[in-house]
Amino acid sequence: MTAVSAVDNGVNVDALLGARDALTESPEGAQFTWRATNEWVRGTHSQATVQGFYGLGQEQRHKITVTFDADHPEVFASEDHGVTPVEYVLVGLGACLTAGVAAVAQNRGIQLNSVKAVVEGDMDILGILGGDADVRNGFNGVTVRYEIDADASLQDIEALVAQSQKRSAVFDVVTNPTNVNVEVTKA
Amino acid sequence: MTAVSAVDNGVNVDALLGARDALTESPEGAQFTWRATNEWVRGTHSQATVQGFYGLGQEQRHKITVTFDADHPEVFASEDHGVTPVEYVLVGLGACLTAGVAAVAQNRGIQLNSVKAVVEGDMDILGILGGDADVRNGFNGVTVRYEIDADASLQDIEALVAQSQKRSAVFDVVTNPTNVNVEVTKA
Repeated sequence: MTAVSAVDNGVNVDALLGARDALTESPEGAQFTWRATNEWVRGTHSQATVQGFYGLGQEQRHKITVTFDADHPEVFASEDHGVTPVEYVLVGLGACLTAGVAAVAQNRGIQLNSVKAVVEGDMDILGILGGDADVRNGFNGVTVRYEIDADASLQDIEALVAQSQKRSAVFDVVTNPTNVNVEVTKA
Repeated sequence: MTAVSAVDNGVNVDALLGARDALTESPEGAQFTWRATNEWVRGTHSQATVQGFYGLGQEQRHKITVTFDADHPEVFASEDHGVTPVEYVLVGLGACLTAGVAAVAQNRGIQLNSVKAVVEGDMDILGILGGDADVRNGFNGVTVRYEIDADASLQDIEALVAQSQKRSAVFDVVTNPTNVNVEVTKA
């Protein structure tokens, strides 16, 4: 047993590297489709459900089905039955980067003790309100502030986070454009 | 009472239009900061909390504090303690577009009866696994399929969805680039 193998962040790096090799050989298995359904409740309140996804050549299913409420807050004259849609994006961004930090730390033999992040998105709501055509609807910018306790130097910890950014799906979605195709049928 | 005023989708359009006018006069109140915290649990499992945000010139608070679990699924050699980070983005996208559909319908005097959407994001996971440098980490594309029952023609329903896209914060975040600044401190 080496010193590296004693590090345990709970990430199975061997399995991930094995999956990479296997999927490089059989790239059709690497084609995933992630899915959420959304159903309007009333006003700006809706409920989303996440259960199944497609990958490894077949339909897959999460262990449990989770329902998420989304709404606008009372300061938008709504009833605040759930967090806002943009906050869900921030939840996803923080979770994606943190999972990456853990995986990279495991791969580099760095023991993590605690990882905390505050993810903030600045927005001028005159955009979504249609009050100023020069203001974008989304975030003007996003800031993620990590505070990490690990058995490593600050420089090595910074390198973990940098590598996580390089491999993060949600970081890519937020920082780069993605085509969204919207189809409508009448029920 | 006009026919339009009898339409009730639960959105207070008058208040929103009033807010737009007031914030156009006092644009500093329109500067919002949305926030989520993220805390690593173990492996790729983390928990996010959404509670406060800044807007209308002061700190605000949701009526309830919500905690969200995120993880990778078992097919990624993880324990599936929550939905994946990218699924949170799909949850946010669907919720944002649906809230917009309800608000626009109210403004146009169209009664909604039901609004359902399936939001799907296609991803080649050889990107995040580092198996192919030509594959992006994020979605190759996203599709949103709406099925809407409303007292209106298909053409008018399609126009509702199109207008919602034009004013959607998350649609903007996904389709356009946003700068993300990541800072790291050692605890």
